[in-house]
Amino acid sequence: MGHRLADVSAPARLAAPDEGIGRDELALATRNHGLPLETLRHEVSPPGLHYVLTHYDIPYVPPDTPWTLTVGGRVRRPLRLDLTDLRAFPQITTRVTLECAGNGRALLSPRPVSQPWLVEAVGTAEWTGVPLRLLLAEAAVEADAVDVVFTGADHGVERGVEQDYRRALPVDVATGTDPEVLLAVGMNGAPLPPQHGHPLRLIVPGWYGMAHVKWLRDITVVDTPFTGFQQSVAYRLRQDPQDAGEAVTRIAPRALMVPPGFPDFMSRTRVVRPGPVVLEGRAWSGRAPVTRVEVSADGGATWRDADQEPDTGHPWAWRGWRHTWTAAPGAHVLAVRATDAGGATQPMEQPWNRGGFANNLVQRVPVLCPEPEEGDGRDREGGDGPVEAESRDH
Amino acid sequence: MGHRLADVSAPARLAAPDEGIGRDELALATRNHGLPLETLRHEVSPPGLHYVLTHYDIPYVPPDTPWTLTVGGRVRRPLRLDLTDLRAFPQITTRVTLECAGNGRALLSPRPVSQPWLVEAVGTAEWTGVPLRLLLAEAAVEADAVDVVFTGADHGVERGVEQDYRRALPVDVATGTDPEVLLAVGMNGAPLPPQHGHPLRLIVPGWYGMAHVKWLRDITVVDTPFTGFQQSVAYRLRQDPQDAGEAVTRIAPRALMVPPGFPDFMSRTRVVRPGPVVLEGRAWSGRAPVTRVEVSADGGATWRDADQEPDTGHPWAWRGWRHTWTAAPGAHVLAVRATDAGGATQPMEQPWNRGGFANNLVQRVPVLCPEPEEGDGRDREGGDGPVEAESRDH
Repeated sequence: MGHRLADVSAPARLAAPDEGIGRDELALATRNHGLPLETLRHEVSPPGLHYVLTHYDIPYVPPDTPWTLTVGGRVRRPLRLDLTDLRAFPQITTRVTLECAGNGRALLSPRPVSQPWLVEAVGTAEWTGVPLRLLLAEAAVEADAVDVVFTGADHGVERGVEQDYRRALPVDVATGTDPEVLLAVGMNGAPLPPQHGHPLRLIVPGWYGMAHVKWLRDITVVDTPFTGFQQSVAYRLRQDPQDAGEAVTRIAPRALMVPPGFPDFMSRTRVVRPGPVVLEGRAWSGRAPVTRVEVSADGGATWRDADQEPDTGHPWAWRGWRHTWTAAPGAHVLAVRATDAGGATQPMEQPWNRGGFANNLVQRVPVLCPEPEEGDGRDREGGDGPVEAESRDH
Repeated sequence: MGHRLADVSAPARLAAPDEGIGRDELALATRNHGLPLETLRHEVSPPGLHYVLTHYDIPYVPPDTPWTLTVGGRVRRPLRLDLTDLRAFPQITTRVTLECAGNGRALLSPRPVSQPWLVEAVGTAEWTGVPLRLLLAEAAVEADAVDVVFTGADHGVERGVEQDYRRALPVDVATGTDPEVLLAVGMNGAPLPPQHGHPLRLIVPGWYGMAHVKWLRDITVVDTPFTGFQQSVAYRLRQDPQDAGEAVTRIAPRALMVPPGFPDFMSRTRVVRPGPVVLEGRAWSGRAPVTRVEVSADGGATWRDADQEPDTGHPWAWRGWRHTWTAAPGAHVLAVRATDAGGATQPMEQPWNRGGFANNLVQRVPVLCPEPEEGDGRDREGGDGPVEAESRDH
């Protein structure tokens, strides 16, 4: 390592064919985490199960630490608010499904080297906070406003440049009601946990996670398009580094399945018993309501409609689906796909982009239904009594 | 994949030299997670930050689901208790540092292929529950008891054998007071979260995580040594597969440091400013009190004593340490090591074992203190004002 700031950053790169996950990717994977897929059964994800991605460090903000939010730039009345001031505004609670824009990246080939998600970077919570448009109305946004820039307290280096985490929304999104953007102070009825932005974060229903700035400390209205790193360099859909690329915004439709049966510890392959197996999971889209969920038990060759749970009145949250499949002995590949009211659906082959963003490849779940002579309990440690079969371990 | 249960499991193996982390290891790393090291600043880890390792699936236990704990085997009065029955026993609260027995595995060479932890599989919580010895006294353990076997509701396959998660403690440990083993129903003043064993788990202060059986549903006292998979196959210190090996039990001493300064997103390399830098962290041992914490700023060539925080009256929990280091421009490797009252300390070169258990290699933290012309803010996006420097991004 040299002695200049630029020396801490390597250029963005793609993994070589068959290159395993590197130490740098693993260092991200051991600290950030996805939703264990069996916990899709929870309609609202407990905080420790909801996915987490932190770019730099989680800021340390002990309880009762004063916190100041400033609102400035192209506004007529700049604001400086503490949390008590903020709580004087009306608050609402919204159920929102959040998904990381990089979900599915580690399944791409070639693999963009970054946080190596498979399919699990998702979660749903009840967020409580103040509608952003009320605060911006109080500040009186000038007519020439273009973007509203949000700055978090998380601080680090990207490509040799020291920076705070910072993202912008177009002014019409920031002041609009569809979605109703929140300055959230609560998650699932409790104060925000440290890793979810304590004490204040942005929630932008329907948008990928990069928009939901955590540890929010400043809002600045600008009259030219914001070109910060996380807006113009990262989080763009591009085929090569020279492209300007398209901005990553709303969440593409996706369905996920609770992997049925039980797993092998290391291979994670699922085992089911022969007979009816209830397949269930959740489906969502940040663009339009999910109108169809289909399940395949033959790796995508044929599909059947799953039952969607009735509309629960939470337009920005996932909805449950369910389908009964009859397992026969053999190896199977289950799959599920969602289609939304805009006609968008999920691909069987993932279109590639250089950053590995906005993937929604159909989930494939390999399942073994053992031949009856193997699945009748003879190989089980324990059986009906808890410790009768130790000697059959190995 | 074949169609027999044994086909879902691959044999235990070691990674080839320079073999990257595989898809199987990644699938574990995206669902289990460590403690983000900057959150070592929290004396008690919030539940979503505390490390989690689940062998199979997290059982789904909705609130108010009936839960039964059975106590049987070599006891005179077999018990069948629900949670209300259990709460009629006296409860205590103990602060306990838990560490995964596989912490540090991914740093070994050759690397045992399993959950690929670096150094972060640790956390500290306040656990509330009933002392196990009170329950066993009620059940009246027979004089010929040898082991007490604990069975969780988590169910899966290991090496082709279907099983519940199951571990045993020697009867003298299970009925003793040093440590006071708990049947825990609460974590940090709240019910257990799903991933930490809701509604009931074992807590064995001072022991590695594999002993703390989650989702506990049965306790069986046996008169011969328990030889289940997690006792006799996994969690043994052995050099080759034929060794009987030594059981993994109590936690070896370890100190960890809050990585100072701020990180590069991808390399995770730390950047600090020149001048005094407070280094801080936590140190623990499951065997004896930590009596010394030393810090090195030259990769372990020379060491200085850190200040330990006074004894806080929590003998099974980590204790804080602190040391002020004066950073000079250049690249540095910081390190920290703990020594306990039994004289055990941390190695600079990790002794190897086939399962990758009970590692406590000295943590090394590469840090860059940039030359002043690079660290004076000229490269910072933002600087004092939040959005004044967008054009310097790229």
